[in-house]
Amino acid sequence: MTLNVILMLTTVPDADTAERLASDALAARVAACVTQLGAVHSQYHWQGTVESADEIQVLFKTSIARAADLEQFIQTHHPYDTPEILSWQVTASTAYGQWVNAETQRPIHV
Amino acid sequence: MTLNVILMLTTVPDADTAERLASDALAARVAACVTQLGAVHSQYHWQGTVESADEIQVLFKTSIARAADLEQFIQTHHPYDTPEILSWQVTASTAYGQWVNAETQRPIHV
Amino acid sequence: MTLNVILMLTTVPDADTAERLASDALAARVAACVTQLGAVHSQYHWQGTVESADEIQVLFKTSIARAADLEQFIQTHHPYDTPEILSWQVTASTAYGQWVNAETQRPIHV
Repeated sequence: MTLNVILMLTTVPDADTAERLASDALAARVAACVTQLGAVHSQYHWQGTVESADEIQVLFKTSIARAADLEQFIQTHHPYDTPEILSWQVTASTAYGQWVNAETQRPIHV
Repeated sequence: MTLNVILMLTTVPDADTAERLASDALAARVAACVTQLGAVHSQYHWQGTVESADEIQVLFKTSIARAADLEQFIQTHHPYDTPEILSWQVTASTAYGQWVNAETQRPIHV
Repeated sequence: MTLNVILMLTTVPDADTAERLASDALAARVAACVTQLGAVHSQYHWQGTVESADEIQVLFKTSIARAADLEQFIQTHHPYDTPEILSWQVTASTAYGQWVNAETQRPIHV
């Protein structure tokens, strides 16, 4: 048996931002695991010219149920006005998929 | 609201090739953003033996409308005979998805 | 024409494990190509606390027909109890897709 989970990818300007975004997303339970993929170099069209930037890529692992919350979280906490937030559904090995789902339950307030 | 965009992944032999392929793809408007993911090490079956190579991974972000053009572009400009060109559809945050679509419009010749 | 192949992603504790897992998967013909994506830094929920680990990400390229075999192979040979094994279907350029399918044929015992 397998379970589907969501991969969500973003790029941030530096390692400090990556670390803070990862920690805050875990604290908010909108992701079970956040992996900093290391330094990347992007070139892109921006307002009529081609720009380039050195960035850190960050990959979030979350449940289908929490994907919209995670996207909203990244959008709110990201330093860019137009952050790259890309997500897709993947098949997870059973135990890993169960773990992702368990760790991204919304906190219960009683 | 969200928009779908295409991620297209290839590997090239070195950073110079990555830089040139990225610049040329942007100039041709077949991608809105090209990210060099850095050095990777591949092992693979080739003509009866297992080979290995140090490569640079390159990730292109384009629109659904331009995906076939981008694949053709990479195929034509890639130094390998059988390049790895892998693509999949992802959900983009609204503003980012709109930007990818806007920046990959075909040039208008009047 | 294009062909679909499977990308399967895992993380291992170090480069030696990555190298061995890659070689063994190729020898077993459960993958056509295995790419070590380099060092990454993961933070994750584990048994009530947030843990972090430096890991190596490994990306396998295989056929749809062999995806279940590859997942079972990684599960068996991975040093973690609950390894991250995530897979998704991608569109491959024709020649590359044909190569992945050809190189992941089950060995024929006569």
